[in-house]
Amino acid sequence: MTDAPLHQIRMQKLQAAMQARMARATEKRGLLLVHTGNGKGKSTAALGMLVRSLGHGFKCAVVQFIKGSQPTAETALVQAFPGLLSWDRCGDGFTWDTQDREGDVARVREGWEIVKAHLADPDLRFLMLDEFNVVLQHRYFPVEELLEALAARPDHLHVVLTGRGAPQVLIDAADLVTEMRMVKHPFAAGVQAQPGLEF
Amino acid sequence: MTDAPLHQIRMQKLQAAMQARMARATEKRGLLLVHTGNGKGKSTAALGMLVRSLGHGFKCAVVQFIKGSQPTAETALVQAFPGLLSWDRCGDGFTWDTQDREGDVARVREGWEIVKAHLADPDLRFLMLDEFNVVLQHRYFPVEELLEALAARPDHLHVVLTGRGAPQVLIDAADLVTEMRMVKHPFAAGVQAQPGLEF
Repeated sequence: MTDAPLHQIRMQKLQAAMQARMARATEKRGLLLVHTGNGKGKSTAALGMLVRSLGHGFKCAVVQFIKGSQPTAETALVQAFPGLLSWDRCGDGFTWDTQDREGDVARVREGWEIVKAHLADPDLRFLMLDEFNVVLQHRYFPVEELLEALAARPDHLHVVLTGRGAPQVLIDAADLVTEMRMVKHPFAAGVQAQPGLEF
Repeated sequence: MTDAPLHQIRMQKLQAAMQARMARATEKRGLLLVHTGNGKGKSTAALGMLVRSLGHGFKCAVVQFIKGSQPTAETALVQAFPGLLSWDRCGDGFTWDTQDREGDVARVREGWEIVKAHLADPDLRFLMLDEFNVVLQHRYFPVEELLEALAARPDHLHVVLTGRGAPQVLIDAADLVTEMRMVKHPFAAGVQAQPGLEF
């Protein structure tokens, strides 16, 4: 049961729609990207973008908030792309483990000083602010201060913010927003976090 | 015309095989992961997992379907992790560019031979079947044949399938499913695909 002509017409329509969309998209500039939602893949997709940028030879930086460590990818990538990647971690462990709001806020401020230095670097092409949506959601940092700093960044710099609970004002300001929605999770089926997937 | 009872028996067998596989390794085992939805981040998140697995020194493989090329990440990672990563591409360009269903199906079959070899490799720890959900959605390959092969794979092998339109039977069989939902996309705002983000 092949429907060759129907298939062809359908594909031609799809092709035309894609071409029309690409024709509208003429501008190249650094984007503000947001990965949010309750599902997996928010930080991991940013990590995939990081690898693509490193593959192009672009200077990149990661500043991790909230999460204390992600040593595997960090160590591997810093070694694999010498001189291209800066990686900093702020905070020690997940917030719900620390129960120390003032300490968390102070650590976010320390991390922000690193972010400001990256935003002032004209050579930087890709900046990942890992779990910063959570920082904003918990009001550990004012979203207005973030958006002002991002608005003043160099034109070619892509910035991706990850984490649940991205506030609406950030979504409004962003160029690209993806919600990672959990459909099914193996922890519910008694499966542990595993190397290579979660860390 | 589908033969409903035959299909049902086959699916029951498949379900039993999947359950037996889960019973063999309840805590740590290779997972079947699906990234689907209309948003960005499906392949990119799989790429992030790949980097984590490579960072652990695990042997990994990527077989790309539909998309013709993603040379940046491939070249960079193959060089950065010598001997650990196998990467194959099947198909030449997006399906809506080829308008050649029989040719597409033949290319999928060629790719499947590579997949079968990977599934038989006891040393492999991570296998990415990029855009295979689209292959299934277009019925370029029978989902039952895929699931039977996955049910018989080594216990420790993680497999991630990416692409829009993952069929329900695949979602039912998967351990972890994330839907990447598009909230906002810059093509709509006149921005082109850019190096480091899309490729």
